[in-house]
Amino acid sequence: MSIEFEPVTPPDTEAHREAVARHLQLTKPAGSLGRLEELGVWITACQGSCPPKPITRARVVVFAGDHGVAAQGVSAYPSEVTRQMVDNILGGGAAVNVLAGVAGATVRVVDMSVDGDTPEMVSANKVRRSSGRIDVEDALTEQECADAISAGRAIADEEVDGGADLLIAGDMGIGNTTPAAVLISALAGVEPIAVIGRGTGIDDDGWMRKAAVVRDARRRAMAVLPDSAALLRTVGGADLAAMVGFLAQAAVRRTPVILDGVVISAAALIADNLAPGARQWWVAGHRSVEPAHDLALNRLGMRPLIDMQMRLGEGSGAVMALPLVHAAVRILAEMATFTTAGVTGPDGDPTPAPVAQPE
Amino acid sequence: MSIEFEPVTPPDTEAHREAVARHLQLTKPAGSLGRLEELGVWITACQGSCPPKPITRARVVVFAGDHGVAAQGVSAYPSEVTRQMVDNILGGGAAVNVLAGVAGATVRVVDMSVDGDTPEMVSANKVRRSSGRIDVEDALTEQECADAISAGRAIADEEVDGGADLLIAGDMGIGNTTPAAVLISALAGVEPIAVIGRGTGIDDDGWMRKAAVVRDARRRAMAVLPDSAALLRTVGGADLAAMVGFLAQAAVRRTPVILDGVVISAAALIADNLAPGARQWWVAGHRSVEPAHDLALNRLGMRPLIDMQMRLGEGSGAVMALPLVHAAVRILAEMATFTTAGVTGPDGDPTPAPVAQPE
Repeated sequence: MSIEFEPVTPPDTEAHREAVARHLQLTKPAGSLGRLEELGVWITACQGSCPPKPITRARVVVFAGDHGVAAQGVSAYPSEVTRQMVDNILGGGAAVNVLAGVAGATVRVVDMSVDGDTPEMVSANKVRRSSGRIDVEDALTEQECADAISAGRAIADEEVDGGADLLIAGDMGIGNTTPAAVLISALAGVEPIAVIGRGTGIDDDGWMRKAAVVRDARRRAMAVLPDSAALLRTVGGADLAAMVGFLAQAAVRRTPVILDGVVISAAALIADNLAPGARQWWVAGHRSVEPAHDLALNRLGMRPLIDMQMRLGEGSGAVMALPLVHAAVRILAEMATFTTAGVTGPDGDPTPAPVAQPE
Repeated sequence: MSIEFEPVTPPDTEAHREAVARHLQLTKPAGSLGRLEELGVWITACQGSCPPKPITRARVVVFAGDHGVAAQGVSAYPSEVTRQMVDNILGGGAAVNVLAGVAGATVRVVDMSVDGDTPEMVSANKVRRSSGRIDVEDALTEQECADAISAGRAIADEEVDGGADLLIAGDMGIGNTTPAAVLISALAGVEPIAVIGRGTGIDDDGWMRKAAVVRDARRRAMAVLPDSAALLRTVGGADLAAMVGFLAQAAVRRTPVILDGVVISAAALIADNLAPGARQWWVAGHRSVEPAHDLALNRLGMRPLIDMQMRLGEGSGAVMALPLVHAAVRILAEMATFTTAGVTGPDGDPTPAPVAQPE
């Protein structure tokens, strides 16, 4: 397998500096908008000029796929729900559709490995029906894994070429928190017990079944650990591989990303390994209640923007953080400065000392 | 002083029950939207029918006022900034204007006690120029305090009669975190040291001056403690008194409120004393970095929706939580149900057992 990404270049340091300086000119106490200021500075650096432009084409791509482990009773729902939910997203009735409508984003769903037939418009990138049962077999062949990563990369290119100025990856697939937990457990070096959550809402028996699957799959993962791509093929899935390609390519294309929950964060850990520095283009949207999520965020060095105890997937947590990004951008673009508003600065001087300010 | 509020009636329990049941019918794992679900249930109960209607007239009222203690050097900014910022809000250049634009709310500013002249359109309710220096004198006379509470009450009535379906109170005034800290310190029974923050960003010397003022004012507060209205008059201010009237009357008028930071929360503690049960109509929008804020929220029994390390006031933190409320409402109103979308429920049954569902 030979998946290589173009080098990731960092966000623009000059625009970053200008945004920091501009914040000091706006009619508010310095630093009083807290993390909203940091977020605005980051987006400005991603865009490369200050003040930043409004985000007008935020795009959510939901990667759908089934997982062989679902048959082991690791989820509260049967696999058929994955295909049904693809239709539901296409019909606009899923949570991500509603939340994207509120936040000013549009939604695309792609079938990477659903265990059933989906409409042609979403199955062009399909790699296989369901990924393998990772506790006893590889999720994907080498070729399938490469194809899935390439598909994710191509989808990021399509979206950026189509004008997307912010990307969100979502996950949807019964059983998908199991490979995510295995990947994070292996990459973060923690015991399975620390990463196993309730997913869609399994009971205690289901949790124990999931624990057995994660334990066995993790053993298989450790054998290939130093090799991120092999890890993805062994205990990941086609949906996760596509997310990896998508997240890495977004960074290559200098497009900011809001990360969602535990499944996307598992993919993010691998994407940052395969495309070093990619994480500079991402921000953590929310904290999921899935225990593995915090471990992944810690490894990525990220602090989530919101914590609403969500655990839905589909990109829903990232989408709920999008209004904060809109706000952060518009604060820098639209607020009055001390000078323009005739407001006295903190030193009592009505026209504060000039600071480099691009306008 | 004889300020009395009509009795507060609780949000509708039947609509609450219907919203809880409806959440189980939507195409998502039960409970997977976490606090977004609770928020939607609360708004539904406030509105009294399920599914809830979209919030279309969210209104922010910023109560502006100066404080005698500002002359003691408790703030990083001079008092003249209060009047200048009234103009800035009127001109649309303040943070709250920009954030309200993002969140779909409109902004009104009222001058309760600015130490200077403001345009007639905002000064109709003005009680006096600056509230008294609370470390050595009362903030207000009995009559002024009653007038300010009445003004806040009348403003809530105006907004609700004008069609507002959600209210946010904001604060703006140099020095206003000092009376807020004193009120919370007195009401929560904690030492001054635990409540004194950096406000707009004072340095260590300023912090020590603020600590001395809070200590002296708190001593004056403790003498009148059991009497909430007397407390407000002694160590509050006209802006805080108006907020109290506004928050209490919003509850009387069965209109949901998103609380902002430390100043609003100080007023909220008193409003819930004067209009028992009013807190049922409020939700905490954000956690401010001001240390007294957590104390106030704990006493109100509230957990903030967002924590972006903000400390700006103007209602900015509450406004940043408004998109979550929009999302919570629209999830209940717009998501497909398992039945309408043909999605299999958690029990594997394609048409889940009927649950009372109003449609």
